[in-house]
Amino acid sequence: MAEALRIGIAGLGTVGASVARVLSSKAAELTRQCGRPIIVAAVSARDRNRDRGVDLGAAQWFDDPVALAKSADIDVFVELIGGDDGPALACVKAALEAGHHVVTANKALLAKHGVALAEIAERKGVLLNYEAAVAGGIPIIKTMREAMAGNTVSRVFGILNGTCNYILTRMEAEGLSFDACLKDAQRLGYAEADPTFDIEGHDTAHKLAILTSLAFGCKISADSIYLEGISNISQADIRAAGELGYRIKLLGVAVQTETGIEQRVHPTMVPTSSVIAQVHGVTNAVAVETDILGELLLSGPGAGGNATASAVVGDIADIAKSRPGFQHGPVFGRPAKELKPYKKAQMRSHAGGYFIRLTVHDRVGVFAAVAKRMADNDISLESIVQHGSSAEGDGSKTVILVTHETTEAAVRKAVEGITKDGHLIDKPQVIRIERAD
Amino acid sequence: MAEALRIGIAGLGTVGASVARVLSSKAAELTRQCGRPIIVAAVSARDRNRDRGVDLGAAQWFDDPVALAKSADIDVFVELIGGDDGPALACVKAALEAGHHVVTANKALLAKHGVALAEIAERKGVLLNYEAAVAGGIPIIKTMREAMAGNTVSRVFGILNGTCNYILTRMEAEGLSFDACLKDAQRLGYAEADPTFDIEGHDTAHKLAILTSLAFGCKISADSIYLEGISNISQADIRAAGELGYRIKLLGVAVQTETGIEQRVHPTMVPTSSVIAQVHGVTNAVAVETDILGELLLSGPGAGGNATASAVVGDIADIAKSRPGFQHGPVFGRPAKELKPYKKAQMRSHAGGYFIRLTVHDRVGVFAAVAKRMADNDISLESIVQHGSSAEGDGSKTVILVTHETTEAAVRKAVEGITKDGHLIDKPQVIRIERAD
Repeated sequence: MAEALRIGIAGLGTVGASVARVLSSKAAELTRQCGRPIIVAAVSARDRNRDRGVDLGAAQWFDDPVALAKSADIDVFVELIGGDDGPALACVKAALEAGHHVVTANKALLAKHGVALAEIAERKGVLLNYEAAVAGGIPIIKTMREAMAGNTVSRVFGILNGTCNYILTRMEAEGLSFDACLKDAQRLGYAEADPTFDIEGHDTAHKLAILTSLAFGCKISADSIYLEGISNISQADIRAAGELGYRIKLLGVAVQTETGIEQRVHPTMVPTSSVIAQVHGVTNAVAVETDILGELLLSGPGAGGNATASAVVGDIADIAKSRPGFQHGPVFGRPAKELKPYKKAQMRSHAGGYFIRLTVHDRVGVFAAVAKRMADNDISLESIVQHGSSAEGDGSKTVILVTHETTEAAVRKAVEGITKDGHLIDKPQVIRIERAD
Repeated sequence: MAEALRIGIAGLGTVGASVARVLSSKAAELTRQCGRPIIVAAVSARDRNRDRGVDLGAAQWFDDPVALAKSADIDVFVELIGGDDGPALACVKAALEAGHHVVTANKALLAKHGVALAEIAERKGVLLNYEAAVAGGIPIIKTMREAMAGNTVSRVFGILNGTCNYILTRMEAEGLSFDACLKDAQRLGYAEADPTFDIEGHDTAHKLAILTSLAFGCKISADSIYLEGISNISQADIRAAGELGYRIKLLGVAVQTETGIEQRVHPTMVPTSSVIAQVHGVTNAVAVETDILGELLLSGPGAGGNATASAVVGDIADIAKSRPGFQHGPVFGRPAKELKPYKKAQMRSHAGGYFIRLTVHDRVGVFAAVAKRMADNDISLESIVQHGSSAEGDGSKTVILVTHETTEAAVRKAVEGITKDGHLIDKPQVIRIERAD
């Protein structure tokens, strides 16, 4: 039997405690799989005395996570502190510089400092594994980094935030308002007290930024992502989508275009008959399209202590199976120094179909004016649904347009024109349509 | 730059030629990902002169694949000959004994000799990779063998045969008969001239047997699989399924039960709202349920030269990233010598819901007799659909029963009883229902 692999865990919250429990309860099976034992040699957390359902008495205790990261008594440093700077960054840097492998679930950290950290890891010849950082338990990093070797990716997209998907699922299933669903999500612990980070798409953006780098061999650029959250999605949108054969999901999408890479996070219409449309509740899903393999989709739990811990344990097991002398694959698919600069595509040139919902005055000539603005901008329409006068009796009418493939610029110009015409009662709603099988 | 990894490919059919083309066209990117070049050093095939869209002039030619397998000029032997014995087995054995890593897409070979071959690989300290053997381009082997380390699997199930899924999809979408769809599948190259192997479930069984071993850490036992194909699925079944909120798929299912492992391949009703129900055409999908991660589903192309080649190239890239001194994980998740004996659960004790379609004489008392047989066997019913007298005017009537969870033994007894009662005009149709999200 080879020597045990010694793990140091910084952060013993929900995920950290679950990792410690799995390493303990599944010790025999992991030893069999990896050819050597994996032991929790050291830990660091805020509260030393909390009961975490696992005996950590044999592990060395560190008050300072950076001291743990540098400790000569560990082989692998597991960072579960969180945050895109501060102690998490200091720890991971220190661990890599000390020649320790690192496993992290920290998407914010990687979205901001991933390339710099990868450079250190590759210089020191250690692994930096981060399966848990994107889509929780779904092995999308392993799939893109290892299984898709040799594939050229054209598009990657997914449901990367369970909170948003939970809210959208309940809004559709139960006809509830966004606010009511958000409150329930908060009550059930699926959403934070301040839900902005989730519902405005920032969390999705962090994960997408990491996937984009892996997909296209470019530097991570989380700041270049077009961002639109789900807080302005109404029952009217969800019902109209359903009538037209679509379902609304918050997607992160990255596409290689002729002018550069397009990264966007926004509410998206996907065909109800597609696989991704059936991904309900807090479940996540990621789809990747490549030249050789074709289209692959993975769905599963995107959050939660156990699912995330499963990804962390998988990362640790991969390290346990490696040995000195093993040449590790690069952190982001190609060596960090050879990652291409990120070249952003102009969002105004995004091409695709659009759903446009207009609340207009119920008077003669409005529909003709709307149709003219579309035609003037060369937008051809796939379908037009005009609902009769509203039940509110306020003289409003709803017009729903679904366009064939057109450009973002054309849609924006058409909608500006319609707004200027003075027929609108309410803000126009524009939702992009994404092709999905 | 480290030394090149030298590949020997035996079998240059659709998949083999595609592998050679990818290794050539993506050489630069693969070198970057793996830290060293991968070169096709030797090949063996039936026809030396066929144009395969890639220049293999620099590769050493072997008429005898076993000689290629033993050659000291290769590091990795790629077996794409096919067949569960004969040259494929001889080659793979010879390559492993010669200390070469092996990559194979051969499910039949592994279903029959997988454990014996794994023992040789583990004794020689080389890798035996077989991602392409199950579900083509879907990285289910990597996911179960690596990403799910530490997880205890309770159930694995999937759509593992594209031919069957293509036929069932078209039957439902277009209302065509099984025979008409099979003919089209043959014309399009999705089905063999003799389609028995696919449509009677043997191909699915081979793949399931491999997944079962990975899932439960047991020896491969393809012969223990309960087998039922799709050739007796009629439009009546598909329509009735749709009315009840189900879709029919040929699934391979392996479940850990209290009495042992249940492996079965049969037409299955899955809820229309489930993700797996949306997997259409030749696409495959595999779902795995575990204690830590929860439920994960992967869907993608299950066959085809390129998709299969993608999996083979991924396996080769994993070997390229390893180096001497690397301790490989076991072939089937736990060391071959420690795989548990396969303990078969009795199919008669299978528990689940059932769909039962009966064509009965349209006369008084039939329904009461059917209901009594169900009650006598403690089968409680979820729904009963009784269609009016048939359009054929032949005095027949259709009764469809959907049961709550019950046992295979109870259902068989009830159906035997109903048959004895003499009310049936046609053979009763029994289709199992599988829980899926």
